Amino acid sequence: MEFSIAKMKEILKSQGDKRVSEGSADELRDILEMFAGDIAEESIAVAKEDGRKTIRASDIREALR
Amino acid sequence: MEFSIAKMKEILKSQGDKRVSEGSADELRDILEMFAGDIAEESIAVAKEDGRKTIRASDIREALR
Repeated sequence: MEFSIAKMKEILKSQGDKRVSEGSADELRDILEMFAGDIAEESIAVAKEDGRKTIRASDIREALR
Repeated sequence: MEFSIAKMKEILKSQGDKRVSEGSADELRDILEMFAGDIAEESIAVAKEDGRKTIRASDIREALR
């Protein structure tokens, strides 16, 4: 999994009129990848506990609790 | 800003051997976009407070506190 630096810059620019350093885009990417990976891992655990082969939207929400 | 559904499925599949419903990919996208938008907004506020025109990596870290 890898978010593009261009996408990270787009996100940062979309919220205001600031310039965006390369380092800030890298940092945002690291954080989002870690967060997304954690949610994915937890969602899978929820589906597994429930004996399902498919991840549902409710598993994602449950993972956030 | 918009993360692709394909990327969300990739993330969910990368953490285990589960099938991924369309709804779960949508849900993950919504959550990541909200989280990313909040971090961006807060990072910009930090840079602004500091009188800077450029967002630094440290602003992103500060935004998470």
